[in-house]
Amino acid sequence: MTAGTITCRAAVAWGPNSDLVIEEIQVQAPKANEVRVKVLATGVCHTDAYTLSGTDPEGLFPTVLGHEGAGVVESIGERVTNVSVGDHVIMAYVPECGQCNFCKSPKTNLCQKIRTTQGAGVMPDGTGRFTCKGKDLYHYMGTSTFAEYTVVADISVVRIREDAPLDKVCLMACGVTTGIGAVRNNCKVEPGSTVAVFGLGGVGLSAIQGAKMAGAKAIYGIDTNPEKFAMAETLGATVCVNPKDHSKPIQQVLVELTGGGFDYTFECIGKVETMRAALESCHKGWGESCIIGVAGSGQEISTRPFQLVTGRVWRGSAFGGVKSRSQLPGMIDEYMCGDIKIDEMISKTYPLKDINQAFEDMHSGKNIRGVVLFEAK
Amino acid sequence: MTAGTITCRAAVAWGPNSDLVIEEIQVQAPKANEVRVKVLATGVCHTDAYTLSGTDPEGLFPTVLGHEGAGVVESIGERVTNVSVGDHVIMAYVPECGQCNFCKSPKTNLCQKIRTTQGAGVMPDGTGRFTCKGKDLYHYMGTSTFAEYTVVADISVVRIREDAPLDKVCLMACGVTTGIGAVRNNCKVEPGSTVAVFGLGGVGLSAIQGAKMAGAKAIYGIDTNPEKFAMAETLGATVCVNPKDHSKPIQQVLVELTGGGFDYTFECIGKVETMRAALESCHKGWGESCIIGVAGSGQEISTRPFQLVTGRVWRGSAFGGVKSRSQLPGMIDEYMCGDIKIDEMISKTYPLKDINQAFEDMHSGKNIRGVVLFEAK
Repeated sequence: MTAGTITCRAAVAWGPNSDLVIEEIQVQAPKANEVRVKVLATGVCHTDAYTLSGTDPEGLFPTVLGHEGAGVVESIGERVTNVSVGDHVIMAYVPECGQCNFCKSPKTNLCQKIRTTQGAGVMPDGTGRFTCKGKDLYHYMGTSTFAEYTVVADISVVRIREDAPLDKVCLMACGVTTGIGAVRNNCKVEPGSTVAVFGLGGVGLSAIQGAKMAGAKAIYGIDTNPEKFAMAETLGATVCVNPKDHSKPIQQVLVELTGGGFDYTFECIGKVETMRAALESCHKGWGESCIIGVAGSGQEISTRPFQLVTGRVWRGSAFGGVKSRSQLPGMIDEYMCGDIKIDEMISKTYPLKDINQAFEDMHSGKNIRGVVLFEAK
Repeated sequence: MTAGTITCRAAVAWGPNSDLVIEEIQVQAPKANEVRVKVLATGVCHTDAYTLSGTDPEGLFPTVLGHEGAGVVESIGERVTNVSVGDHVIMAYVPECGQCNFCKSPKTNLCQKIRTTQGAGVMPDGTGRFTCKGKDLYHYMGTSTFAEYTVVADISVVRIREDAPLDKVCLMACGVTTGIGAVRNNCKVEPGSTVAVFGLGGVGLSAIQGAKMAGAKAIYGIDTNPEKFAMAETLGATVCVNPKDHSKPIQQVLVELTGGGFDYTFECIGKVETMRAALESCHKGWGESCIIGVAGSGQEISTRPFQLVTGRVWRGSAFGGVKSRSQLPGMIDEYMCGDIKIDEMISKTYPLKDINQAFEDMHSGKNIRGVVLFEAK
């Protein structure tokens, strides 16, 4: 079944804070419980940029970044039973082994089976599958989707229906799932709730559509870039607020605007200041705030404990609390029947050679999401 | 029905950071929707000491402190329908009007009906009922139980069964209810859970008995005073840990001891450092930490947001999430049938004249709870 080493193109991150370089790399055959996937589409996400910037203390170089990928199974290693060659798949940076205490708990999606090796940039056996110019490249987030072929653990591969367009549903590997899932699984937003979403990027817009699907009666979108408001309103925001239009702290503005604050707030930026603002924008007695954004290394959140003692709840979300292999296929069905919106969030597509432009367009705020299509020229 | 002004004894706090003074005070008749209660027993709590110390920024002087009181209705004002003269009652610093948005929500007990005036040390009509030597005294927490007679709002009065001993169930007005309620209402601890309680005073010991009643399989008591361990074990603690016996941070010790941390932790001390330790002692993926203790003015809690993003939840509790008038009578029933333990927590009783000694014994760690009996000599 396995076909030996493949030579193909990849965007290699040789070191922090420099452009990716399109290189020929060698991708070894999958070993036992591993799957080699021909990647057809991958989103470019702020998390890739965070690691590339060098501020991620766990960042390892040289590496192949990328974690929002979809493709087709090219070959499988021994003992792989969950996918076959030719299956359409999404690669999930949160795996699901189904057997660890985390997988068995209904309260979390954070499978720990391969956490240590994934964090160390290697496959579960402790070795890597990528080389370039004779050098080993690290894996990234268990996915490394910025390559034409990648090798991942079988528990990181989600088989999806074949009629789902890979160039769209690749975003279900991170942003869309994270935003919608946080609303549904972590906060369990009820019909009639009031919701605020801080940060209107891909994750924030997905939280907005999640809130709309959950039946929220008021959905506030908060961003300092008013160019994002139109899309937020398209996806369900009922009110958009630009903190720069106000001199008071944004939490005070929002509590006054809403006569007491929100039932649920979501922080989709990754700044500790907005995490505090999101908590303090919650309604006394029952408001819950969910941290989705990833803050810089070493930064801390803080607030007066009185905020919690008087009934607010502070929680967080990783991959929207979604158990990847069990729950993603159902969300793909929701996309296919038009309930979940993805197409609207893809601002632009790029061939692999232009991947650095995709990063630039993300940083400049032009893109909600840019998607790299490996077969585009 | 009302009998005019009563002259009686009270422990008056003339100013911050000084002993209470036993004085003759005048207690006016209750006005509309007010109840005058002959107080028979009151607990002495750290919250009284906090205000008396002068560090409570909302503290007002001169005042009659006290908020763990039980007694008998002496007279009622117009339009009072929930109690009659002679009823046995507990005075609750969290009232329950039954009509505000907070009372109507199943998620909170924080009735807001009289919050503003209660915080300002006056009755809902904006005036006080206490005078001493020609000076007005402020009310405290809507209860002021350090007096032989007090006047409270009708929505702050909970009628209880007549066979319940007032010298014991007075503690249901604060500590016991707070600890048990946080376990039941705020965290909803499930059978088989693992629990840690930081601080083994009256509230912490009550959280321990709450955890035992909830069916927790492991209950850790954490305190720097090992003299408290015996009582904690009597009430349900399975393991007691003294942070002073360890050189590592206590959260690290506990996570190692338990192989990953607790399902639920409760902070019953009021220090922002232990609040952080309690959160960080929670299990990744699902651990929830509940702040019960009241921190000093201006202090802030902090942690890395990663703690929440990886599944921990930070919440708080006031009066154990218990809706006072609806839920306290049922808890009194639980005490009367032996399920809830109160007697064990009363270390010593005092006549009113010795109330300063009760504060001293609390500060020195001698008492779990001291109770003042007004008819004792």
